Amino acid sequence: MYEVYVAAQFEAAHRLVGDFGPATRTHGHTYRMEVILRGERLSDEGVLYDVGELRSAVEDIAASLHYRDLNDVPVLAGVNTTAEAVADYCWERLAPPLRGRGLDALTVRVWESPQVYAAREDSLA
Amino acid sequence: MYEVYVAAQFEAAHRLVGDFGPATRTHGHTYRMEVILRGERLSDEGVLYDVGELRSAVEDIAASLHYRDLNDVPVLAGVNTTAEAVADYCWERLAPPLRGRGLDALTVRVWESPQVYAAREDSLA
Amino acid sequence: MYEVYVAAQFEAAHRLVGDFGPATRTHGHTYRMEVILRGERLSDEGVLYDVGELRSAVEDIAASLHYRDLNDVPVLAGVNTTAEAVADYCWERLAPPLRGRGLDALTVRVWESPQVYAAREDSLA
Repeated sequence: MYEVYVAAQFEAAHRLVGDFGPATRTHGHTYRMEVILRGERLSDEGVLYDVGELRSAVEDIAASLHYRDLNDVPVLAGVNTTAEAVADYCWERLAPPLRGRGLDALTVRVWESPQVYAAREDSLA
Repeated sequence: MYEVYVAAQFEAAHRLVGDFGPATRTHGHTYRMEVILRGERLSDEGVLYDVGELRSAVEDIAASLHYRDLNDVPVLAGVNTTAEAVADYCWERLAPPLRGRGLDALTVRVWESPQVYAAREDSLA
Repeated sequence: MYEVYVAAQFEAAHRLVGDFGPATRTHGHTYRMEVILRGERLSDEGVLYDVGELRSAVEDIAASLHYRDLNDVPVLAGVNTTAEAVADYCWERLAPPLRGRGLDALTVRVWESPQVYAAREDSLA
């Protein structure tokens, strides 16, 4: 099994709704997004997936969230902006063009700090 | 599948027993403990598990080992203090309150340095 | 399930062949190689595998690629020097002496930078 990984970063504000103590105040993070593709076979050129192409897709999502308050971003309307929810959103946005290309799975990890992340991993089949 | 991750750090001395060369001398590490929970479903509030609660449990264990000689810590008596054994101990201490809460698996990674870790991963079911 | 991990580093040049834009020019990376062993059981001494021994094997491979142009390294002749291909080469070189020692799987991750890696993971059984 092979994997390729790319990472990108964005700075955003957010606040949680619910029983989350100080995290219910508007605050922010230097978010780090890590994206991993898994699959069984390399192309004739020796890659699982073109990392340059993947990186460009990941950078586009990071740019769309950069220097924003996640609680005001229209695509996250009605969503509690937990790291899990942000990972979910990025996963759903990345997955469609990756399907049908011989890949098995996609993981998106969203780091709020070097001490905390949430991730979503699911099949692309 | 979702994951949440938290990390903590502690400074401790130890020495190995057996055929481990210089590691049989008392030495020490800036240990980094990484803890990962896995599960299939988010709560209504959009979390797999409250990261604040998890972090507090992980910090408690780190604090109990901080600035100690692991070979003198009573809960590790009779244990060869390999990174595997420390991961085992932390796993067993963290797991009980996590069972029965809809989580699938718990991983504990114990880094002795940025170049070396040992981990234990097992089901919480 | 247990894991042990070691990391090493090497500085090398390379260039890709194919539709990879600027990556087809000779350039270089501070490569980081991460190696992970997985298995179910610890030895009587409390280790999955002697990390010192693993580290020595990994450092040997890193040293053999250090300060080289990967496109001129004889063992990579005819190979497009993608991170996937370098991971493949390191995997095949590390695996033989690890078989038959009660280990389940070997992963080799080859980082070209802190933003990009490729990995190969396969069974040792």
